[in-house]
Amino acid sequence: MLKGGVPGNKVSLIIVPIIAAAGLTIPKSSTRAITSPSGTADSMEVLAPVTFPSEELKEIVSKNNACIIWGGALETAPADNILIEIERPLHMDPIGLMIPSILTKKLSLGVKKLVLDIPVGQGTKFPTPDKGRLFAYLFKEIAANVGIEAECALTLAHQPIGHAVGPALEAREALILLKDYSAGPNSLIEKSTDLAGILLEMGGKAQKGEGQLLAKDILRSGKAFRKMMQIIEAQGGDPNISPDDIEVGPFVKECFATKNGYIVEVNNSFVNQIAKAAGCPSSKSSGVEIIKKQGAKIKEGEIIFRIYSHSESKLRKAVKIYNSTGGPIRLGGMIIERI
Amino acid sequence: MLKGGVPGNKVSLIIVPIIAAAGLTIPKSSTRAITSPSGTADSMEVLAPVTFPSEELKEIVSKNNACIIWGGALETAPADNILIEIERPLHMDPIGLMIPSILTKKLSLGVKKLVLDIPVGQGTKFPTPDKGRLFAYLFKEIAANVGIEAECALTLAHQPIGHAVGPALEAREALILLKDYSAGPNSLIEKSTDLAGILLEMGGKAQKGEGQLLAKDILRSGKAFRKMMQIIEAQGGDPNISPDDIEVGPFVKECFATKNGYIVEVNNSFVNQIAKAAGCPSSKSSGVEIIKKQGAKIKEGEIIFRIYSHSESKLRKAVKIYNSTGGPIRLGGMIIERI
Repeated sequence: MLKGGVPGNKVSLIIVPIIAAAGLTIPKSSTRAITSPSGTADSMEVLAPVTFPSEELKEIVSKNNACIIWGGALETAPADNILIEIERPLHMDPIGLMIPSILTKKLSLGVKKLVLDIPVGQGTKFPTPDKGRLFAYLFKEIAANVGIEAECALTLAHQPIGHAVGPALEAREALILLKDYSAGPNSLIEKSTDLAGILLEMGGKAQKGEGQLLAKDILRSGKAFRKMMQIIEAQGGDPNISPDDIEVGPFVKECFATKNGYIVEVNNSFVNQIAKAAGCPSSKSSGVEIIKKQGAKIKEGEIIFRIYSHSESKLRKAVKIYNSTGGPIRLGGMIIERI
Repeated sequence: MLKGGVPGNKVSLIIVPIIAAAGLTIPKSSTRAITSPSGTADSMEVLAPVTFPSEELKEIVSKNNACIIWGGALETAPADNILIEIERPLHMDPIGLMIPSILTKKLSLGVKKLVLDIPVGQGTKFPTPDKGRLFAYLFKEIAANVGIEAECALTLAHQPIGHAVGPALEAREALILLKDYSAGPNSLIEKSTDLAGILLEMGGKAQKGEGQLLAKDILRSGKAFRKMMQIIEAQGGDPNISPDDIEVGPFVKECFATKNGYIVEVNNSFVNQIAKAAGCPSSKSSGVEIIKKQGAKIKEGEIIFRIYSHSESKLRKAVKIYNSTGGPIRLGGMIIERI
């Protein structure tokens, strides 16, 4: 079975406003979650509508150089929409269908250049860099044949990006970072500015190797935040929305460390299972927060994980999975097991 | 091919004095390096001789309840000595030979109880906990048949223990920790007190679950340090040796971070290759220091790795391997590769 990608990957909500703020046009079509707790379209929908007829879409993009929409609704790519509908009930997302699925939507939006994020590692579609690299070359070649210049980035996928997983929680984490660079989290800053940097270089806004610096400057300056508010407004959302306005839960369970140690692993697959049991993605306010990530020191009794759900019974189910798996966070000491 | 264990695993130099200081008898027979840069016997030999006839050995152990010697020299286990000699040129260390090899030496020393450290994970003899667990059950059963009560600990092996790899560097790191608990490193403290704790529990010195606390107290109090000095003296070493007296190098190469980021992986196999190219284990003063480990933040230009060698040409060879592998330390950003 092919598993979904890395949880918490809300990088598009950071990348799109950075690129648009730099003056480039970036019409971003995103997916809804298929096998994962939240797709970019699910997270964006917490902030604004994501489904528009083509005509309206053109107007939205012309206003701010950008949009973040659900690609499946594009009338110009009906075949792909059917594919997604077929995949969903089977919980699969075959690699062979991915390239046309991605490219038809990009073509219908007039995309000329794109960067493809390819998370590699255990539990992703590409368990080794070799497999990711092969897909990257194939993708670049097919993209070139239909007139799209593509670059691919093989990215780390050993633990979630940032701390939040689930539509509302991810939208909130993205807004917090857009408002205040110093609020982090680090992995989200690094990954989104890494990818945005490549786009800025491809678009001629930065010299080769200097794109990420420019992306960080734009994010730090607040320009990306202001652009995001304009995009939200153009898509019919509230341009004055604050991270605190975003509803999460309301049922919450906090999980604590049972001993001193440090975090040696955050298991993506368990994170996904728990978030989905809690109600993701159909319940937008459900999800999880990974308080402590790999490398963090921790004391007995400190909080390490939080589960949110819209439903008390689903929360109970998610907690049950947390307990039966031992939790997605493996805590050292150095001894895994004593026999 | 079976690879060696986790590099930098100098835990015995910490465990033995803790246990002896608690009043238990612990005659520790250790191996020299076969496929790794340093075995415990190689590191101990930097501080004192490790080869003794049986009679003298009994006297040494009776003085301080402890010794740390090369097990291969025990006259009572000649078959094993031959096995080790056979294995060395082939760079292999077959699992089937490990159980008799370990047990014959322990029997000849009169060992009644032992804890076996089983590092598990990619690049070790036991890539998955399942395989380690199977070996543990087998080992416990065979040990019980020959009258030895054994407990096994599956331990983390994803990166080196502590920062130092190589006989002299490991001896120095152990002495520094024995002298000053606050000097760390954390992974060495946790692993050695975890294992020592099990022994203290088996020996009736601590209640189940409280062994590690007692082990840490003994280490923190300086009792383990004083005991180690007595063991060194009994084996004919200098009981006033200071960490600064231990010779390393003299040829040294420092390696620096080429970008900002954080450490996402320290590759054991590359660490071993570099340390061996530098001269380990036959040159005791050669080895490596991993300055920054997994999870550490790092700035461009900061030192992350140091290579020591007794020979200028071997240092050059080790640096060449460092450069050709990209180094054992993988530094994020989040992008592994851009295609």
